[in-house]
Amino acid sequence: MNILFIGDVVGDAGRRVLLARLPVLQERLKIDLTIVNIENAAGGFGVTDKILRECLAHNIDVLSTGNHVFDKREAVELVGREPRLLRPHNYPVGTPGSGWYVGKTRTGEPFAVLNVMGTAFMHPVLDCPFACARTALETRPEAVKAVLVDCHAETTSEKMAMGWFLDGQVSAVVGTHTHVPTADERILPAGTAYISDVGMTGCYDSVIGMNKDKVLRRMVQKLPERLEAAEGRATLCGVVIDVDTKTGRSRGIQRVSVRED
Amino acid sequence: MNILFIGDVVGDAGRRVLLARLPVLQERLKIDLTIVNIENAAGGFGVTDKILRECLAHNIDVLSTGNHVFDKREAVELVGREPRLLRPHNYPVGTPGSGWYVGKTRTGEPFAVLNVMGTAFMHPVLDCPFACARTALETRPEAVKAVLVDCHAETTSEKMAMGWFLDGQVSAVVGTHTHVPTADERILPAGTAYISDVGMTGCYDSVIGMNKDKVLRRMVQKLPERLEAAEGRATLCGVVIDVDTKTGRSRGIQRVSVRED
Amino acid sequence: MNILFIGDVVGDAGRRVLLARLPVLQERLKIDLTIVNIENAAGGFGVTDKILRECLAHNIDVLSTGNHVFDKREAVELVGREPRLLRPHNYPVGTPGSGWYVGKTRTGEPFAVLNVMGTAFMHPVLDCPFACARTALETRPEAVKAVLVDCHAETTSEKMAMGWFLDGQVSAVVGTHTHVPTADERILPAGTAYISDVGMTGCYDSVIGMNKDKVLRRMVQKLPERLEAAEGRATLCGVVIDVDTKTGRSRGIQRVSVRED
Amino acid sequence: MNILFIGDVVGDAGRRVLLARLPVLQERLKIDLTIVNIENAAGGFGVTDKILRECLAHNIDVLSTGNHVFDKREAVELVGREPRLLRPHNYPVGTPGSGWYVGKTRTGEPFAVLNVMGTAFMHPVLDCPFACARTALETRPEAVKAVLVDCHAETTSEKMAMGWFLDGQVSAVVGTHTHVPTADERILPAGTAYISDVGMTGCYDSVIGMNKDKVLRRMVQKLPERLEAAEGRATLCGVVIDVDTKTGRSRGIQRVSVRED
Ligand SMILES: [Fe+2]
Ligand SMILES: [Fe+2]
Ligand SMILES: [Fe+2]
Ligand SMILES: [Fe+2]
Ligand SMILES: [Fe+2]
Ligand SMILES: [Fe+2]
Ligand SMILES: [Fe+2]
Ligand SMILES: [Fe+2]
Repeated sequence: MNILFIGDVVGDAGRRVLLARLPVLQERLKIDLTIVNIENAAGGFGVTDKILRECLAHNIDVLSTGNHVFDKREAVELVGREPRLLRPHNYPVGTPGSGWYVGKTRTGEPFAVLNVMGTAFMHPVLDCPFACARTALETRPEAVKAVLVDCHAETTSEKMAMGWFLDGQVSAVVGTHTHVPTADERILPAGTAYISDVGMTGCYDSVIGMNKDKVLRRMVQKLPERLEAAEGRATLCGVVIDVDTKTGRSRGIQRVSVRED
Repeated sequence: MNILFIGDVVGDAGRRVLLARLPVLQERLKIDLTIVNIENAAGGFGVTDKILRECLAHNIDVLSTGNHVFDKREAVELVGREPRLLRPHNYPVGTPGSGWYVGKTRTGEPFAVLNVMGTAFMHPVLDCPFACARTALETRPEAVKAVLVDCHAETTSEKMAMGWFLDGQVSAVVGTHTHVPTADERILPAGTAYISDVGMTGCYDSVIGMNKDKVLRRMVQKLPERLEAAEGRATLCGVVIDVDTKTGRSRGIQRVSVRED
Repeated sequence: MNILFIGDVVGDAGRRVLLARLPVLQERLKIDLTIVNIENAAGGFGVTDKILRECLAHNIDVLSTGNHVFDKREAVELVGREPRLLRPHNYPVGTPGSGWYVGKTRTGEPFAVLNVMGTAFMHPVLDCPFACARTALETRPEAVKAVLVDCHAETTSEKMAMGWFLDGQVSAVVGTHTHVPTADERILPAGTAYISDVGMTGCYDSVIGMNKDKVLRRMVQKLPERLEAAEGRATLCGVVIDVDTKTGRSRGIQRVSVRED
Repeated sequence: MNILFIGDVVGDAGRRVLLARLPVLQERLKIDLTIVNIENAAGGFGVTDKILRECLAHNIDVLSTGNHVFDKREAVELVGREPRLLRPHNYPVGTPGSGWYVGKTRTGEPFAVLNVMGTAFMHPVLDCPFACARTALETRPEAVKAVLVDCHAETTSEKMAMGWFLDGQVSAVVGTHTHVPTADERILPAGTAYISDVGMTGCYDSVIGMNKDKVLRRMVQKLPERLEAAEGRATLCGVVIDVDTKTGRSRGIQRVSVRED
């Protein structure tokens, strides 16, 4: 099974390149399952009903998120209504929605996706993602072999630790949140595909997808500045993971990057 | 001028692969200037006199560091004595040593290296790296065109912001500290080579170079655990930057990665 | 029931004033139950078997702790063996020891103590203290009316929020960790005694109980410095809480401060 | 000289009690100089032109602030125009306004006020407050003996360190930002009055002045919640410091707390 996982979609530029390039990618790479992190799709901050519908209408199977999931208040209701829109699973018990989704691909192959958020330098501080992952995976139906984990975290150490923690138990641990793709994709010894960060999908003439002049003013002058998603030619960043559906182990992981003309 | 910059050397494994592979790399890539971040060379924490001598004896021109620079107390004295061993330049005025070095390559080409540390999620909290960089660069002798900046920082946003801040003023801004190489190397519009992180030099069957069992115990069980540099086959990670010495602008930046047998 | 709660005992100076003044305080204030936070008793960092025995031999009923609980490795074993030595209850399930203690005073009055740690700016990051408190309190035996909570946290907001969260459900929420007594002791509307921090027990000619020259060197020069508990005339800081054992509500809370001669 | 320093005024409730009680306090305590931290005066976040005028019209001599100073964008302009409205002095060189004010009381007595912000767990990260204070104090005119420092910081350690750092060089170091008064007011050995935090001026049936239900929702449920200043009976918190204007040393410091009827 070929899983395409695409990193944090940022603003209009991110959504534009995502929707424009996805069909070709899916066909060319023979994708069975498409997962996209959209925590920054709404102008850089959160997700709206309109964006959710748009994504689901474009052959995206599951949408993951992170610390920005509830930036738009309507998302509290959205995650409760649409199980394919994940919020980090380590939110407190009782939070609307879930970070664990079990489904079937268009061709009937079962799969699961888990979305957790790190706690190092992250806000809000959620429950331990390691304990959360362990508990969620115990509920995996026997028939589900392909399991992808989106570990949304700041530090490379927390993400790499999650990779080792789950090695052999899931098909892939992919990192998000830093908005920069890392070059450390690999298959861990027990068969779990791993990458520290897949990078964002948006305009890279920016600071992590946001207008660079505004970020610089904030960082250099320390003055408050309302950040905005950057405009300009955008790039889609993701990974393709080849999972053996008999065992759930991964055979390969490759970075994918496509830029707008 | 070809500059080889190598990321955070971690422990014995890191030093071993560094010293073993450096000569071949320098020759094959026609390196004129070699800079290595050694903040983690002494068992993962800091640098010693012995390590410093060893590096300087192996054709390394400048050694940069970061938040771990003073983990071994003797380094306070080392940076005061050896100008080629940099500590972040944004330490308070009066701190022994410097983070700004102006020198000449073996072939007589002038160059400068600046080492700064980010303030986001970093300890200790130093002075603003942007203001510090601006001030340091004002002292650049006219003849010095090739200038490399090691921006040792946690967040991709702070490093990318530094890239834009210095674009056109320095030959390269290379990130260190996360110990994972990023895949975003490029030449910014005004000629500055940039990468968010060059990755570490050490054993990657680890969590950022440290023994993974110990890190996992700390992260999962939250119990104190004395971390140790990981042992095992090590990988050297760095970048080669091709600088036009007439203008100081970069023409290319490429990731380099070499693994022990 | 009169409960004496004494804040973070720091080093030799803290233990000295604690043991010297406790008997008189207990008698003069007609104390029924004595609880002491000893996370910093061993030279500023953690607790040892010797210190634990010494405290239990001096009429202290329960010992609470915080982020420093495991600074001395032997404490992992101590909390597993001695239920009167609490570690924050929101450590992961499976951690040795407990942060919830149900006992009886010398006169046979039942009571309970809960020790939780905040997550804002604290290391390690434990599970949510609010959810943890809720769960722990559900196990309170009906006969236990007097319940004291030591909320070990950095920010006033997290501690005050805990006060409101538990108002009417416990007899007292007392804060520790900042090592400075606050002047906001009061009875909340539903009967819970509250103070943001009881302050430390140790030498106040210091920075939070540690040698001030060393702290200043670290803060001003940003150089690593091994901190040591301060020596000099020490002060014991705590609160006395008057609990109605019929209802568990508090009738009064008063700060107590006694200095060595 | 009697200096009245009043802590963080929060929202309407804070302004109401401030303006209502100030005249009586000033008269009863024979106040020569009144300084008020107003970083939270505008609904909990920042300061406006209207609030600034109102304060200056009510016999307040100097207004200090902290991390919230620029929450309302107009404050960038206000601090540039009105020297009596301080922003933390350790903002970057070039920031509008100043954190250092030299003036004369109504009776012609010279004084100075310095406002600095800590860097531990504070946002934005400013320059080192210790170095900043040292530099600012070097510009003190010889005739100015009475100098008060508002050290706006999160941790007790950073504030206490500032107290020791400046002991004997200024008349007082008073802490702000945690919004809870501490009970550690004292005269340090070389004559500097010190308190870790003077507490806020606002409604204490709240979490640090903000509506407690909203804070609890944010802390317990981890959901975003727009915070609002709490309404209800408010309390003014401050300290009165008795400074010997011959030497600049303090003779006494006392907490002041007045509640609305
Ligand atoms: Fe993101
Ligand atoms: Fe994120
Ligand atoms: Fe490093
Ligand atoms: Fe580092
Ligand atoms: Fe403590
Ligand atoms: Fe503590
Ligand atoms: Fe404030
Ligand atoms: Fe503040």
